[in-house]
Amino acid sequence: MGRFQDQRITPVSTVKTLGLLGTGVIGAGWAARALHFGVNVIAVDTRPEMEASLRSAIGNAEPALARLITAPLPPKGELSFTNDAMQMARAADFVQENIPEQLDLKQRVLGDISRHTRPGVIIASSTSGLMPSDLQRSMQSPERFCVAHPFNPVYLLPLVEIVGGERTAAATLDSASDFFRFIGMHPLRVRKEVPGHLTDRLQEALWREILHMVNDGVATTGELDESIIFGPGLRWAGMGTNLIYHLAGGESGMRHMLEQFGPCLKWPWTRLEAPELTEKLIDRMVEGTQVQAAGRSIRELERLRDDYLVAIQQVLRQYDVGAGSTLRLVEERLFGEASRAAQQIAQDQPGPTLVLTMQVRPEWIDYNGHMTESRYLEVFGDASDALFVRLGADAAYRATGRSFFTVETHLTHQLEMCVNESLYVTTQILAFDARRLHIFHRMHRGHDAALVATAEHMQLHVDTNTKRTVPIGPEVREQLERLAAAHATLSAPRERGRSIGLERDR
Amino acid sequence: MGRFQDQRITPVSTVKTLGLLGTGVIGAGWAARALHFGVNVIAVDTRPEMEASLRSAIGNAEPALARLITAPLPPKGELSFTNDAMQMARAADFVQENIPEQLDLKQRVLGDISRHTRPGVIIASSTSGLMPSDLQRSMQSPERFCVAHPFNPVYLLPLVEIVGGERTAAATLDSASDFFRFIGMHPLRVRKEVPGHLTDRLQEALWREILHMVNDGVATTGELDESIIFGPGLRWAGMGTNLIYHLAGGESGMRHMLEQFGPCLKWPWTRLEAPELTEKLIDRMVEGTQVQAAGRSIRELERLRDDYLVAIQQVLRQYDVGAGSTLRLVEERLFGEASRAAQQIAQDQPGPTLVLTMQVRPEWIDYNGHMTESRYLEVFGDASDALFVRLGADAAYRATGRSFFTVETHLTHQLEMCVNESLYVTTQILAFDARRLHIFHRMHRGHDAALVATAEHMQLHVDTNTKRTVPIGPEVREQLERLAAAHATLSAPRERGRSIGLERDR
Repeated sequence: MGRFQDQRITPVSTVKTLGLLGTGVIGAGWAARALHFGVNVIAVDTRPEMEASLRSAIGNAEPALARLITAPLPPKGELSFTNDAMQMARAADFVQENIPEQLDLKQRVLGDISRHTRPGVIIASSTSGLMPSDLQRSMQSPERFCVAHPFNPVYLLPLVEIVGGERTAAATLDSASDFFRFIGMHPLRVRKEVPGHLTDRLQEALWREILHMVNDGVATTGELDESIIFGPGLRWAGMGTNLIYHLAGGESGMRHMLEQFGPCLKWPWTRLEAPELTEKLIDRMVEGTQVQAAGRSIRELERLRDDYLVAIQQVLRQYDVGAGSTLRLVEERLFGEASRAAQQIAQDQPGPTLVLTMQVRPEWIDYNGHMTESRYLEVFGDASDALFVRLGADAAYRATGRSFFTVETHLTHQLEMCVNESLYVTTQILAFDARRLHIFHRMHRGHDAALVATAEHMQLHVDTNTKRTVPIGPEVREQLERLAAAHATLSAPRERGRSIGLERDR
Repeated sequence: MGRFQDQRITPVSTVKTLGLLGTGVIGAGWAARALHFGVNVIAVDTRPEMEASLRSAIGNAEPALARLITAPLPPKGELSFTNDAMQMARAADFVQENIPEQLDLKQRVLGDISRHTRPGVIIASSTSGLMPSDLQRSMQSPERFCVAHPFNPVYLLPLVEIVGGERTAAATLDSASDFFRFIGMHPLRVRKEVPGHLTDRLQEALWREILHMVNDGVATTGELDESIIFGPGLRWAGMGTNLIYHLAGGESGMRHMLEQFGPCLKWPWTRLEAPELTEKLIDRMVEGTQVQAAGRSIRELERLRDDYLVAIQQVLRQYDVGAGSTLRLVEERLFGEASRAAQQIAQDQPGPTLVLTMQVRPEWIDYNGHMTESRYLEVFGDASDALFVRLGADAAYRATGRSFFTVETHLTHQLEMCVNESLYVTTQILAFDARRLHIFHRMHRGHDAALVATAEHMQLHVDTNTKRTVPIGPEVREQLERLAAAHATLSAPRERGRSIGLERDR
């Protein structure tokens, strides 16, 4: 590498048009990503019917891309489609090839394309496993060729493996990396040509073991998927095997890990032979993970790992996927128990409706040693949700496009709450009309029923699509009337309609 | 299995105390998880110095666990430590063994323990790879033994592989699974005993390929980790290889995938030999993934995959890890100007003091798709803290036993905030006297300075030891006077002193 003229390679700043050869899943993914970042795309496929499927695939990718990138973007690029590869070759500032994985076919097409593109135009191949030195063999100006191997879905996964062949110029690798960074990706420079590059070798190792286990009748595909997604897969979203094993080694990290688990490598856990754990290999593993740790202690890295593991499971819960389903399940049980406990107490208490019982969590405590103010509103928000469920304004109701939005809140604090104290919240309906609901929550300390805080809320009943107020549904309205009637004899709370002012208390 | 008496196995509802043998990383993880869900723990280690490290490890685990489980929990379990395994055996309702991976050692200890526990008490082993039939060999009542293999960190990862031996009763597997679900885990029933169970076989396959690549000088540990975390690792957090490959096959799913990529299995991508792709194996793979798809179309599964891939990258961005760093980088480029412009607007506005700029985090979003109400108060609370620091009422001041406590809050909501939008908060001093401070925060949207929400607070200046109000310290008072003077010419906010009522808006 680097023996060729570099100065001709097209820099990223002049790439206005990406030429795509092949419009299958990978080609369409490249198109969606490039267009989203403002790059024009000329897509080539010999089958004219692929234009419609390409446009449909891009349309499917757009909503997710739009949610992923929330920063302001340049105007979307323009897409054109042709059956003529040479027309694309003449117009493109960067060519990405995504045709079937056949060496002779790819060699021929890449050779043809290279004779019609301007000489500085980079030509990259999405090949999963072919070697760049083989692919560039019949090209004109082969120094501007490299492998750029992406992962499905290309429009969401940032990884792209960049591999040069024997005749690739260093400037090609730099400039291609710049381009992929420009469209939001993480170029991983693979320094040695090996079949399958890096990622697919690792994926294949897993995949072949899976095939063996299914073949031997040890487990189903579903069980084998579970074995990853509820455990190691969560870790692999943020840290790879090496850094994870560095953490597993405790304070002495990778070296200890290799000492302790090295012997397992001799066990019949997979059909693959492991390399001998020589001093040299151990040193490489240790030095590599030291570089990755970048001076951070095991404890620091553990905190980082724990932070992202918590956050990932909480977002997976939102989609009821994998570990998120597990979390959802256990929390449903806990909320159910709390709400049954609340109902138990409620039967004894006439008056405002008991909607929630809880315990003050350690992480709710602030620097003053008591429950921090935003957690009061979190508990009151949960109390409002519990009320809505009781009124029939639950998830099924919200699925019809209607929900209550809080527009105004007044909180008073009367007592402090400390860690692990129990509390409960009651609700009183103050008023409502067709589109509005005025409610009042009281938070009491569990052990002596003392009043801790109050929340007065004005809720609007909203169409969640138009974001405009709409009348409360008749089924919810009926429950509301019933509850309001039960509260009709209650006196108005002292804090109702109160406003804040220094003068008032003087 | 199932040939033994089942009725004696202890049901989960009666498990009050978990006995732990061994208090290393895995033992401590079990302890933290069980205690958090209200189960008492008796931990055994022959090394007395392990008690301190156990308590410290549990202390490290607690904050993450507390953030993971947001539902109300029972009171924390109680931890005790002993050097006497038999004392633990007599007291435990469920025993989990976590001693070193040596078959003879484990056999001896499990045999001893089994002679001192009540006969129905389940005894489980955390072994990574030993076979349950071997482990239960010298036990009394071996029908209540099983492998329950967890993953590090045990307190956060839900996966636990449950494997029975030849003499294990079916009731043991059921009851153990119930217990692990009770403490928030996902029990994966492994139906055949194989060395390494399921997960570690898959992990080892990857790990050995990594060792080979490092050994051959192809890549560093860091490059190999990148090859996973920026690509396949993100997918594996929510779906396993099989379902992911089912999606990669397009509309005809796994069958097409095997037809298309089957030939690759013959390529030299790893050193492992793959099984022959017989009709029988293909059928098993296809039928397995059909079960996993559970009637969902490829398109539906793709949307689910895209949803979680977006959400995961957004939470990883928060921690600047893996794909989150890539996203952060490209958004910094795109978002930089907009956010600089927003700050410009804020600084150009004479008047209220800019105290805080932030971005709406993904986990602040509720079921209505917008920032949830308690997070507004969290941001306003942070704004108050920023103001206090500016006034000199910082940590050093609080260390003298004085602090501001919020006693009353009034919030108004004017616009919704969506994920990742930038915002800033300004503060206006409305009034103060010797012991009280009346402030007003405005939250604005970053990109157009639109008013999003307001918060009016009454703060009391309190002696944090006596919890009684005391005069504001002269140094803080002086800063307060200076800031109030700068705000003296500002007009009163429209929302000042407002109270909530249905009547007002009629």
